[in-house]
Amino acid sequence: MARLGPNRYGKSAVRVVKVERSGDRHVLRDATVAIALEGQFEAAHLGGDNRAVLPTDTMKNTVYALARDGYTGSPEAFALHLARHFLEHPAPVTQVRIRIAEALWSRIEKHGKPHPSAFLRAGTEQRLARVDASHTGMTVHGGINDLLVLKTTDSAFEGFIRDQFTTLPDTSDRVLATAIRALWRYRTDPADYSGCWHTARSAILETFADHESRSVQHTLYAMGESVLAACDDVDEVRFVLPNRHHLPVDLSRLGLENRNDIFVATREPYGRIEAVVRRS
Amino acid sequence: MARLGPNRYGKSAVRVVKVERSGDRHVLRDATVAIALEGQFEAAHLGGDNRAVLPTDTMKNTVYALARDGYTGSPEAFALHLARHFLEHPAPVTQVRIRIAEALWSRIEKHGKPHPSAFLRAGTEQRLARVDASHTGMTVHGGINDLLVLKTTDSAFEGFIRDQFTTLPDTSDRVLATAIRALWRYRTDPADYSGCWHTARSAILETFADHESRSVQHTLYAMGESVLAACDDVDEVRFVLPNRHHLPVDLSRLGLENRNDIFVATREPYGRIEAVVRRS
Amino acid sequence: MARLGPNRYGKSAVRVVKVERSGDRHVLRDATVAIALEGQFEAAHLGGDNRAVLPTDTMKNTVYALARDGYTGSPEAFALHLARHFLEHPAPVTQVRIRIAEALWSRIEKHGKPHPSAFLRAGTEQRLARVDASHTGMTVHGGINDLLVLKTTDSAFEGFIRDQFTTLPDTSDRVLATAIRALWRYRTDPADYSGCWHTARSAILETFADHESRSVQHTLYAMGESVLAACDDVDEVRFVLPNRHHLPVDLSRLGLENRNDIFVATREPYGRIEAVVRRS
Amino acid sequence: MARLGPNRYGKSAVRVVKVERSGDRHVLRDATVAIALEGQFEAAHLGGDNRAVLPTDTMKNTVYALARDGYTGSPEAFALHLARHFLEHPAPVTQVRIRIAEALWSRIEKHGKPHPSAFLRAGTEQRLARVDASHTGMTVHGGINDLLVLKTTDSAFEGFIRDQFTTLPDTSDRVLATAIRALWRYRTDPADYSGCWHTARSAILETFADHESRSVQHTLYAMGESVLAACDDVDEVRFVLPNRHHLPVDLSRLGLENRNDIFVATREPYGRIEAVVRRS
Repeated sequence: MARLGPNRYGKSAVRVVKVERSGDRHVLRDATVAIALEGQFEAAHLGGDNRAVLPTDTMKNTVYALARDGYTGSPEAFALHLARHFLEHPAPVTQVRIRIAEALWSRIEKHGKPHPSAFLRAGTEQRLARVDASHTGMTVHGGINDLLVLKTTDSAFEGFIRDQFTTLPDTSDRVLATAIRALWRYRTDPADYSGCWHTARSAILETFADHESRSVQHTLYAMGESVLAACDDVDEVRFVLPNRHHLPVDLSRLGLENRNDIFVATREPYGRIEAVVRRS
Repeated sequence: MARLGPNRYGKSAVRVVKVERSGDRHVLRDATVAIALEGQFEAAHLGGDNRAVLPTDTMKNTVYALARDGYTGSPEAFALHLARHFLEHPAPVTQVRIRIAEALWSRIEKHGKPHPSAFLRAGTEQRLARVDASHTGMTVHGGINDLLVLKTTDSAFEGFIRDQFTTLPDTSDRVLATAIRALWRYRTDPADYSGCWHTARSAILETFADHESRSVQHTLYAMGESVLAACDDVDEVRFVLPNRHHLPVDLSRLGLENRNDIFVATREPYGRIEAVVRRS
Repeated sequence: MARLGPNRYGKSAVRVVKVERSGDRHVLRDATVAIALEGQFEAAHLGGDNRAVLPTDTMKNTVYALARDGYTGSPEAFALHLARHFLEHPAPVTQVRIRIAEALWSRIEKHGKPHPSAFLRAGTEQRLARVDASHTGMTVHGGINDLLVLKTTDSAFEGFIRDQFTTLPDTSDRVLATAIRALWRYRTDPADYSGCWHTARSAILETFADHESRSVQHTLYAMGESVLAACDDVDEVRFVLPNRHHLPVDLSRLGLENRNDIFVATREPYGRIEAVVRRS
Repeated sequence: MARLGPNRYGKSAVRVVKVERSGDRHVLRDATVAIALEGQFEAAHLGGDNRAVLPTDTMKNTVYALARDGYTGSPEAFALHLARHFLEHPAPVTQVRIRIAEALWSRIEKHGKPHPSAFLRAGTEQRLARVDASHTGMTVHGGINDLLVLKTTDSAFEGFIRDQFTTLPDTSDRVLATAIRALWRYRTDPADYSGCWHTARSAILETFADHESRSVQHTLYAMGESVLAACDDVDEVRFVLPNRHHLPVDLSRLGLENRNDIFVATREPYGRIEAVVRRS
């Protein structure tokens, strides 16, 4: 009466920190890895036969083991290394997804000089890498998560549809804030994933800063265009942008005028804008 | 050079609480609603032309307004009501997704008697409803989120593949804990969504409790079978089950024996098992 | 130029789960323990001399080891057991604080019959125990954390001071919701900590439900009185009550009347009411 | 039989964002404010008489209103402004505590040039200010919260007490990571709170980076000394330092050697070290 549909399993939230001590300056890498496998796992589901099942505990150990010699550069390269390992495994795996989120650390400075072995978390932002691998090919994504940005001018929202439930006034000058999530797909293998990442991130930030925004959608699209223009190796980028509303406080009820300078930052509800921008 | 790919937008985390005071016993409904629309929104993205854009602020107001007369029964019925509203809207909408998560409240008891107007949050669990609507049809899902369960016996995990990185021992008697997320699809329109929800939930819980589990996958599938057996109106159910590992503490290092009774509950890393079980 | 002021250290978030399998029905205990020690630790701070320092890692191990034979009843009894251990330790400890938060599990039911070995998380609520111990005595507290309650009537807030910034209208019938945190101190050693806990919890819940509330302060005090009346062994109780505001939605802007039934639940900002009620 | 003990109430999590647009470069301030009042509020608790009660909703409005002209410099100055307002209020207030946590934003850069009106969240860190005010005086604290730091060398932990439950090996070279919370008290009124804040923060960071750490306690004390040495206006500083353990992975079980470079970052349990360092 029942049958098994699409399924996958794996280990999430595997945290591995690597310290490279080879030179005078230590290098710090801080990754949270998630692994998901698809394959011939029907016997485990239907009959409790585990002979084809690679334990998720082993996946965790594999992250630690392969990080030792294989996490020496970009998270994309490490994700590719992990993906190949699981694809070549005796377990009946047909599809592997590796996701890595790197926490970003900068060096503590003293008199403007960066310290060789002491670090400070740089922002709430994470660098993302994702690899989807099967026996017929690999797809690589790079990205950004939770990059908090805010602009205090050059953002409007007006001329929208109004219905019986619309109370929002048109505004030609609002505060715009969001937590950028962007994931871009590589169409070719870039020589330098980290270089690409910095290029894409700068394109996104500079466009956010300079754009004459008429809506979140409008700025999302402009940021996508700028990534495609800056990164030849990328063929599409997907954004998820929560609108972190900053509402002008109605000071008139308090006997004061709000000179467009006092806002309340709200967490919920929030607008959520999501789109893919593609190379045509 | 660029073009717009798939896109949607909407309002998330719209919280609405409704109190029904008609009888002696007040009824409390506590929903968090998310709305996402797809449609002809290219002009907004490419040119900043908002004439087709329904503000997410209006969506929020619509939830409040329609809750007044339309949130009188199940969250599924309220989601259908909201979906129809947006589908019939002058805005160029082609696809609507409404998701509702209800917090569950039980009545405070005094000498075993439930109070007519005072409530207590019942569990961490949420009841889920989802409607996907287009001009050609509607799909309704019911579900459960974050239902924490744990069993202290009748759970094994043995006979799995071992490789050079496997250190996990076989175990024939472990603690099994998870936070159940289940979403089931209705193939027909049940007379009573809330009745179905209780039936499906009981089937899941009883199967979890009684199953001789050989793995999370094995119990997942059994829970799926039990939902299909119990609910004629359902044609598939998708589970996401994080394995909330309870690891036996190695007391031998402390000069003691662990009689399979002392465990450390860990949050990360965690196994994640995901599958669809379908009516065949 | 500098000197050491008040200081303490310890291990927090030690999670230990214990399964009692002696009878037909398994008993599940799920504790999160925090330990803090004060004592003669100046040499460690000033000179890096660790000879008097008991590692926090050892404290963690101690929780696991002592749970084996010492966590057989109430969390208060286990906390006392841990406190005595550290007080009698060769390390120069003068003051010990043990805090335990128990997650609450109920049994999964089938046809109304509770299952012997399968459990369901009961609420978001935690049971608290705290012991403060020195060589001159011990103080024991019991308590509750994060007990979410809501009442739909019998709550008013009116007649308060108004100034130039007051916009809140008087209300004679509002929704009142809070997440109760209560910590009560035992003046005598009760025969049965768990019995006391249930008595105090019932007193709090029933008072919350039945009280004709004129403010959070008013209901807080009534709940404190009821605990003192119900529990002879208790001499004071401290409450922290966040006001989980449920604001009536202004539907008049949407062309509708709010019949005091549609509310938006907000998270921030929130009122915070805190007081001790003492036996006089 | 019951009487009221210590009590206070107020509004927490009041978020206010202020944009200063006077010059070419916008200035962004982002505060979360908490207010707590003590005073003669017995009638409210015992009898539900609200005539002396200033609603927390009014406190929230007061933050918005006073931010307009009074939040023009440091959070300490704004906190003082708010404290004076409530102390001079007709409500029977005897003690006011204002706490402010500022989110930190840096400017988005383009070709190394900071943007006049576009910002990026700088770190997870918050700047803290606290004012405790009564009719007899005011105390001002400045501080830091959640400043994540990590050092990859110059940290040892050895020579500690061992007992039957100790399994931790001595280590002469470990990873040390923490989330710094520091709160320092001003003994005199500095001309420039923000200058002091930067001086104290640099002293803390540079000491963390350079210290030959023998324990968290040892580094805590050194950081305290450095704040007192750098800031004449400060007479004591209190630190709370969670030990964000980075445990070397036992790769030997995987057939590999850990060259002190592969670590797992854990969240719980965690050590917690807390001390005050005072000017003598």
